[in-house]
Amino acid sequence: MDLNSTSGHALAIQGGLGSFHHIAARTFDRGKTAGVLPCADFHTVASLAAEKDGTAGVMAIENSVAGSLLHNYTLLDRFPLQIAGEVFLRIRQNLLALRGKKIEDLDEVHSHPMALAQCGHFLQAHPHLKLVESDDTAMSAEVIGQERLDRRAAIASTLAAELFELEVIASGIEDHPQNYTRFLLLHKHEAQAPALKASLSIVLDHSPGALHRLLRIADEGGLNLTKIQSMPIVGKPWHYRFYIDIEGTSPIDAPHLHRLLGHACQELLVHGVYSPGQHHEA
Amino acid sequence: MDLNSTSGHALAIQGGLGSFHHIAARTFDRGKTAGVLPCADFHTVASLAAEKDGTAGVMAIENSVAGSLLHNYTLLDRFPLQIAGEVFLRIRQNLLALRGKKIEDLDEVHSHPMALAQCGHFLQAHPHLKLVESDDTAMSAEVIGQERLDRRAAIASTLAAELFELEVIASGIEDHPQNYTRFLLLHKHEAQAPALKASLSIVLDHSPGALHRLLRIADEGGLNLTKIQSMPIVGKPWHYRFYIDIEGTSPIDAPHLHRLLGHACQELLVHGVYSPGQHHEA
Repeated sequence: MDLNSTSGHALAIQGGLGSFHHIAARTFDRGKTAGVLPCADFHTVASLAAEKDGTAGVMAIENSVAGSLLHNYTLLDRFPLQIAGEVFLRIRQNLLALRGKKIEDLDEVHSHPMALAQCGHFLQAHPHLKLVESDDTAMSAEVIGQERLDRRAAIASTLAAELFELEVIASGIEDHPQNYTRFLLLHKHEAQAPALKASLSIVLDHSPGALHRLLRIADEGGLNLTKIQSMPIVGKPWHYRFYIDIEGTSPIDAPHLHRLLGHACQELLVHGVYSPGQHHEA
Repeated sequence: MDLNSTSGHALAIQGGLGSFHHIAARTFDRGKTAGVLPCADFHTVASLAAEKDGTAGVMAIENSVAGSLLHNYTLLDRFPLQIAGEVFLRIRQNLLALRGKKIEDLDEVHSHPMALAQCGHFLQAHPHLKLVESDDTAMSAEVIGQERLDRRAAIASTLAAELFELEVIASGIEDHPQNYTRFLLLHKHEAQAPALKASLSIVLDHSPGALHRLLRIADEGGLNLTKIQSMPIVGKPWHYRFYIDIEGTSPIDAPHLHRLLGHACQELLVHGVYSPGQHHEA
């Protein structure tokens, strides 16, 4: 990613301080930004990044266990946004409570339903904990700290523990250690310098072999497909839009992609060219 | 689909009598089966179809507005099932209430959250109706009929109106008239006669151009891709399983598909060969 491009920007994130989006934002900014801007939903993140000066956005796009966030792909089509970078964050879940508490002191565990689901094995091994669903992992932690709730735990990040002065009672309690989320850095649309990776949104002719022809041209042009995601086109049953990520062996840019692939597509949007992301631990 | 294959079978469906699964089941059976078997969830439908003698299953797999039911694709891998047929059902939503009621007599509308979401325009035009989420469209209708609730409406099918003796106060209230759901007919695994369509579950080598090579072989073999859906492989971040539907110009069978495509795949499961489905109105 272009580190300079986030300088001075506020980063809009989905969720509150201490959320995994907050951690992802910190990997992008390297301490150079004007801080994070918590948002209630992904639509707000996308609209702020597209329309508000001095604001970029950070948005999860897929998880290695749960799959693609389909609605977030559609936000890329609806707003004049571009992808300026990506990061892969290892999602580590933790049981947090007030300092000095032991697991047997606790009655309830609050978190987002997805986080509770990710920790099924741990929670089954501690059946005395009543599960309570909340809107946000980090907010569940914040409430415990603010209201000094001494019988309640939250499942959230170590950053949430740090920010809200809680203790990590158990760490790495997710079922699948290979649990990564890919986050995108989103900017207002503008010309982009060539880079090794690109994200495309494509509608093909509805004719036999159309996808094969597109992939052949990409393959012959030295572009390797790293992800393909289909989404129905509303109003055209059983026609699909494809979201495709490709990596080149040398840097590529949007005009090159339009010249190479445009004639094989009914519609081709280049959602961004950027450097392939790094892996980070949450 | 092979109509004879459902003779004498009970059809396990997700949801209750009057649900869209019930309507889909009726298009498969042509009055020849031993009736429907309502199930609480898709997992139960799949396990009954795979394991219980004399039982087939009916399961939604994708919707033309909302996209694929990803969890249902994974059920095809987990149970020894095969797809014996498919049907495309136009989803028509209706506002149902006790007979003689007008919309201004009603205070609340109950339905499954997906059905409420599909009727956003209609519901916004009638803001006096309080929305209440329920587990099932048809069950919401059944309760009104049984308990004679004269200020409550449900959003459900015309079949539910008929079964529970309700009146259709407003019909076709879904936002998108091009709203179709594709349902699969599922049988216990056994040898299948050649047919024009097949559903595959595939893991490719993680090498550049692997998907392109597979599609080239399919294309050269006269097989046209009609759907591709990717799902992450749990434990192998950013490796994907592909669910692929193909149609041949002449009938195909599983041994032929293994010979043609097997060497281009790390893993190839043929989930069924069957005749392309018809469209029906709900």
